[in-house]
Amino acid sequence: MFLTNEQIEYYKNFRHKLHQIPELAYNEKQTAKEVCKELDRLNIDYEYGLGKTGIVAWVKKGNSNKSIALRADLDALPIEEKSGVEYASKTKGVMHACGHDGHTTMLLAAAQYIKEKLEFNGTVYFIFQPAEEGGAGAKAMIEDGLFDKFKIDRIYGLHNRPTEPFGTFLIKEGGVMSAIDIFKIKIKGKSAHSSQPHNAINPILIASHIVLALKNISSQSLNPTSAHVISVAKISGGTTFNIIPQECDIEGSIRVLDKSSQEIIKSKVHEISKGIAKGLGGDVEVDYEHKYPITTNSDISYALKAIKSTVLAQNIITNFNPSMGSEDFSFFLEKVPGCYVWLGSKKEGKKMIPLHSQEYDFEDDLIEIGATYWINLVKEELS
Amino acid sequence: MFLTNEQIEYYKNFRHKLHQIPELAYNEKQTAKEVCKELDRLNIDYEYGLGKTGIVAWVKKGNSNKSIALRADLDALPIEEKSGVEYASKTKGVMHACGHDGHTTMLLAAAQYIKEKLEFNGTVYFIFQPAEEGGAGAKAMIEDGLFDKFKIDRIYGLHNRPTEPFGTFLIKEGGVMSAIDIFKIKIKGKSAHSSQPHNAINPILIASHIVLALKNISSQSLNPTSAHVISVAKISGGTTFNIIPQECDIEGSIRVLDKSSQEIIKSKVHEISKGIAKGLGGDVEVDYEHKYPITTNSDISYALKAIKSTVLAQNIITNFNPSMGSEDFSFFLEKVPGCYVWLGSKKEGKKMIPLHSQEYDFEDDLIEIGATYWINLVKEELS
Amino acid sequence: MFLTNEQIEYYKNFRHKLHQIPELAYNEKQTAKEVCKELDRLNIDYEYGLGKTGIVAWVKKGNSNKSIALRADLDALPIEEKSGVEYASKTKGVMHACGHDGHTTMLLAAAQYIKEKLEFNGTVYFIFQPAEEGGAGAKAMIEDGLFDKFKIDRIYGLHNRPTEPFGTFLIKEGGVMSAIDIFKIKIKGKSAHSSQPHNAINPILIASHIVLALKNISSQSLNPTSAHVISVAKISGGTTFNIIPQECDIEGSIRVLDKSSQEIIKSKVHEISKGIAKGLGGDVEVDYEHKYPITTNSDISYALKAIKSTVLAQNIITNFNPSMGSEDFSFFLEKVPGCYVWLGSKKEGKKMIPLHSQEYDFEDDLIEIGATYWINLVKEELS
Amino acid sequence: MFLTNEQIEYYKNFRHKLHQIPELAYNEKQTAKEVCKELDRLNIDYEYGLGKTGIVAWVKKGNSNKSIALRADLDALPIEEKSGVEYASKTKGVMHACGHDGHTTMLLAAAQYIKEKLEFNGTVYFIFQPAEEGGAGAKAMIEDGLFDKFKIDRIYGLHNRPTEPFGTFLIKEGGVMSAIDIFKIKIKGKSAHSSQPHNAINPILIASHIVLALKNISSQSLNPTSAHVISVAKISGGTTFNIIPQECDIEGSIRVLDKSSQEIIKSKVHEISKGIAKGLGGDVEVDYEHKYPITTNSDISYALKAIKSTVLAQNIITNFNPSMGSEDFSFFLEKVPGCYVWLGSKKEGKKMIPLHSQEYDFEDDLIEIGATYWINLVKEELS
Repeated sequence: MFLTNEQIEYYKNFRHKLHQIPELAYNEKQTAKEVCKELDRLNIDYEYGLGKTGIVAWVKKGNSNKSIALRADLDALPIEEKSGVEYASKTKGVMHACGHDGHTTMLLAAAQYIKEKLEFNGTVYFIFQPAEEGGAGAKAMIEDGLFDKFKIDRIYGLHNRPTEPFGTFLIKEGGVMSAIDIFKIKIKGKSAHSSQPHNAINPILIASHIVLALKNISSQSLNPTSAHVISVAKISGGTTFNIIPQECDIEGSIRVLDKSSQEIIKSKVHEISKGIAKGLGGDVEVDYEHKYPITTNSDISYALKAIKSTVLAQNIITNFNPSMGSEDFSFFLEKVPGCYVWLGSKKEGKKMIPLHSQEYDFEDDLIEIGATYWINLVKEELS
Repeated sequence: MFLTNEQIEYYKNFRHKLHQIPELAYNEKQTAKEVCKELDRLNIDYEYGLGKTGIVAWVKKGNSNKSIALRADLDALPIEEKSGVEYASKTKGVMHACGHDGHTTMLLAAAQYIKEKLEFNGTVYFIFQPAEEGGAGAKAMIEDGLFDKFKIDRIYGLHNRPTEPFGTFLIKEGGVMSAIDIFKIKIKGKSAHSSQPHNAINPILIASHIVLALKNISSQSLNPTSAHVISVAKISGGTTFNIIPQECDIEGSIRVLDKSSQEIIKSKVHEISKGIAKGLGGDVEVDYEHKYPITTNSDISYALKAIKSTVLAQNIITNFNPSMGSEDFSFFLEKVPGCYVWLGSKKEGKKMIPLHSQEYDFEDDLIEIGATYWINLVKEELS
Repeated sequence: MFLTNEQIEYYKNFRHKLHQIPELAYNEKQTAKEVCKELDRLNIDYEYGLGKTGIVAWVKKGNSNKSIALRADLDALPIEEKSGVEYASKTKGVMHACGHDGHTTMLLAAAQYIKEKLEFNGTVYFIFQPAEEGGAGAKAMIEDGLFDKFKIDRIYGLHNRPTEPFGTFLIKEGGVMSAIDIFKIKIKGKSAHSSQPHNAINPILIASHIVLALKNISSQSLNPTSAHVISVAKISGGTTFNIIPQECDIEGSIRVLDKSSQEIIKSKVHEISKGIAKGLGGDVEVDYEHKYPITTNSDISYALKAIKSTVLAQNIITNFNPSMGSEDFSFFLEKVPGCYVWLGSKKEGKKMIPLHSQEYDFEDDLIEIGATYWINLVKEELS
Repeated sequence: MFLTNEQIEYYKNFRHKLHQIPELAYNEKQTAKEVCKELDRLNIDYEYGLGKTGIVAWVKKGNSNKSIALRADLDALPIEEKSGVEYASKTKGVMHACGHDGHTTMLLAAAQYIKEKLEFNGTVYFIFQPAEEGGAGAKAMIEDGLFDKFKIDRIYGLHNRPTEPFGTFLIKEGGVMSAIDIFKIKIKGKSAHSSQPHNAINPILIASHIVLALKNISSQSLNPTSAHVISVAKISGGTTFNIIPQECDIEGSIRVLDKSSQEIIKSKVHEISKGIAKGLGGDVEVDYEHKYPITTNSDISYALKAIKSTVLAQNIITNFNPSMGSEDFSFFLEKVPGCYVWLGSKKEGKKMIPLHSQEYDFEDDLIEIGATYWINLVKEELS
């Protein structure tokens, strides 16, 4: 629609180039260099180095002081590629298994049109962030002053999704990806030889009670329609069969889609573990950390219009279950309003290959659709 | 040894008479009347009516102010007799299924010899107590002034035991029958319709945690060699499938053989149920009652000597597991020193019929052995 | 829109008449008689007596064999009215606390217009069902042949909702009200006196383990985005403090919004309780009953159009959490496609009074809106 | 009584010599050499090397083929001595903190008298065993043919006990020290990312249920008077907060004083963990090992007589709680009858210093009492 066939071809090749040089979180130097070269080629201004390897580029037209930001991610994963494509990773044990090469490419393709052809009034920021995979690169960019240096009114993100049909957008108001909180509970008992159990407070016993009691949070304290996960994933106490240990540690995570549930869970984790440990003669130390916020779409109106200009109505899904995974785009959405959407990539007749698998490759034909969505979004917001 | 054949025959017949008129706890009026008639016949002084239907009789010789008490029990059980004996119960649904008719008889037989033949120096009290079966008749007699009216230095009890060989005594220092404590825990939650679980605090859930946590007392707080039982025997909460109730009650008993364990358990029952309930957002009310004390033999030396004068060494067992049942003789032993012994009743070749069974009947031949023991005991203590 | 002011006034008065004669489930004889009188007045054919006191009326126009059914409910609740209105219940302890008087009235008002004025092609069925409140009146009508006697292609339901603003419709595809399943688990242990715990299998202990283990279903077997409730609401075992009982019963309910979760839960309730009981030396008997199905809106397109013709876009909510309550309208939706919607009744500045409360009264001004929706629905479906 | 003052002085010095050269389990080479030198001095035959560093010596008199064995232990502990005695350990980090230097010495002292002075008829074996401290040296000697090479009818052991008054013997029939069994339960679930809990079977959850359910064994399956310990002392599962692991391991020990309880516990550990794991969708592998048998005194009659010849009646305790610790002497008692006794070492006015503490030193004055007991025992058995 907006891109010429030559441009489409160009950007597919560019994506293949990135695909061969995958880099792990905060080490995306080669990748960033390629992005900067493109921005130079397009005469687009940018700043490199926010969040270590992140890039912010911008195109300003007209005299409006309105602005939006479009975000792509740069990093790859510590996975050994087995996709079989010609342009496979040249770095052993690292691959673009999540399609960030594609996200980066489609944003550059959009940037070219926005810079060269699109009429609009305001500023468009193009964010190429590092470390989306568990590294909280978004947070790092914010801490490096993203929102201080640049006046960004709204921010938008997009991710490909191999489980949905090719060209289908998923968009919804509210929480679309869960927050993740981490807890560590150190249960403190009293050690003794196992022939003297009455001189011990067995922390493993207390831990077992707490593991079971944490289940009560789901059924007693949270609205049943509030999706959430409370998982204990690690437990460790004692060194040998006949010494009741002094301590036992449990560790786990909480995923939640609304803030009020998150607060309830946090306070209940403390209350339950404390109450039970004290009741059983021991004590606890609870570490509780908010790791990633909820990815909350606060305003989807412009994005929805842009999608409607991009694909047919039948390719728009607005009623779907949120994901219990987490996204560092949530840190951006804590600061400014915006919207995060998914773009289906599964072509009919082709096998579905999930993200983070060794066989995965980004679907090249999404580049045009994604770029078109970005361009339409700028039209909607800044015209 | 002390009794003539005629006397033995007389007392067997007397026992059969009592066996036909069994009376339940605190209603042993007919039985007491028969006992009083015998005491009258023997010219032994007595007082009737302590603990409603209890009798205290006494024989004093010499000028010593030393005194001992020997105790028998009067009451029968609400069990339908199927023993098949000629002199079976004439009262439907009530029977002497625990041999108290025998205990009473052997004490009267001893009283006759002690009154008529035995030389000793001091006072012997003969206690015929009501309501041994769950009615705490001993406690009732104490509350009616037993130890105020009568100066009793030591007290002795004896019970037949069908599981041990005929003529075998079991005697041991320390706790021989357990205390019994009762607890009721009312767990207070918050009621709500089951479609609104987050508005409820489910007391059944809390109760389940508490039931399991009470198990910790055994393994965490008590010396493993300290025999005890902590049992939840009743639970009740809720009225229908879709209303989470406000409250759930649990009820149970504790049996224990040493005071320090008893105190630990009592405090732990409170601590655990409170801690867990609070931790899970609810609360508890705990009722905890000492029902029967531990039956603690504080001095067995005279009793052991008396037994040695009564039976052969091979018929004396001093190393046996205490019983987890309770005895109201424990109330006497809380007040004065003494000793409670068992006397085996199972004759070789005869089927063992346990106490409290419909087929049970007291073994007549124990009358002589029991009476002999009582007489020997007076000889040991007061000569 | 469709009704004249006189008609509106007439139906308000009719609603007040019904309000004064509330009748409990399956006893709605007086109420049904009033409905029949109205149908007679309007010359509308009907059949009385399906599901004991239910009524099916019908209006046929044109030659199409297409048909839809519109449903109202007749029954009141065993609640003592304290609404303070002039036309309050004349039957002590019974009141229209759920607005069924209003539902019935608005359907009659719609029927008048549909009969007298509306041009359409097909058959409209008006269902006045008994026993919506826990009596499964819908099921009773089906069992009495509703779908055999009458060819009904689609069915529609509407309920007032005091928690939402006046005149606001809530409509959504899929599960909008939960199924309810009931389980009873009889835990079988072995009874013994509490002094002999080793001769018992304590079913209360097993029950406690099962109560806690049922919590695992939520976190281990169900997708976290699948809203559901698993509640134990009743537990009962034992009769006294010192007899460990033979059995302990637990009872509860399951609410679920998708069939696959329902099947998983059902099989897990069996598996978990069996496994744990056997592991602990006991056994279980599990009764598991599907009581109400999920209320699943299978096609909302016509209803949504009718709503759009009835109220402004801002008064339409399509993104809301489903209710964990149950509706017997679900039985109809198991048989034919259709849609169940809520109509907000809370006027600004007025205190919100929830359904099933003593102060509740149906909002008269909803009669016109509800009737308009029904009429628009017939226009959408049968024109 | 039997030893001269010079001999007593000699053996005290010998004990001090051993005390300075403590050696850990199975490395008692220097110690054994000293023992052999003494046996050579006394012209007593012996064999060295059973169980690596063990010694069996023997004295035969008369023509009876009756025989008894008396056992001492050789090994020291990995504890840094802080006793402050002149003859303290010369080996850093190793000390005789359990008095085995004294046990060895008193047996040699007895051997001298038995060899030189005592008249008896039969064979006396003197066993100096290695590795009593957790190394199961007794078992090693048996496996090296102790009972095959030597015809031993009965065996006797003695251990000093600082918690009891000096010169007091503790002797009792039956189990006096507990068996120890070890269990490892590998709980097998199914791993998944914590955002996908419904695709996991969380083994930590199952482990928690099992830890609590193992408590039921005590209260449901074992006679309350049967002392025992069931302790979980180690738990380990998972590696990080957001991956539900595949497996969780729990490990613990069981201590028990009677064989029937031991068998019940073993079968219940299997049954409970299997039942619960299966019920919750997982599985278990249970490793269960009998590590040390119960130390069961099968015949105490000769030992009791020997004690009565050694000390006053008031220094004999026959009614005491068994120890929940373990002893490898139990392996000997599995093969032949015998008796294990304790000898109190706490002198009035002296501070009690427990075994295995840095300040501990064997009480020299026990040498004569212990030797006297051994000599009296030979007199009782073989005269």
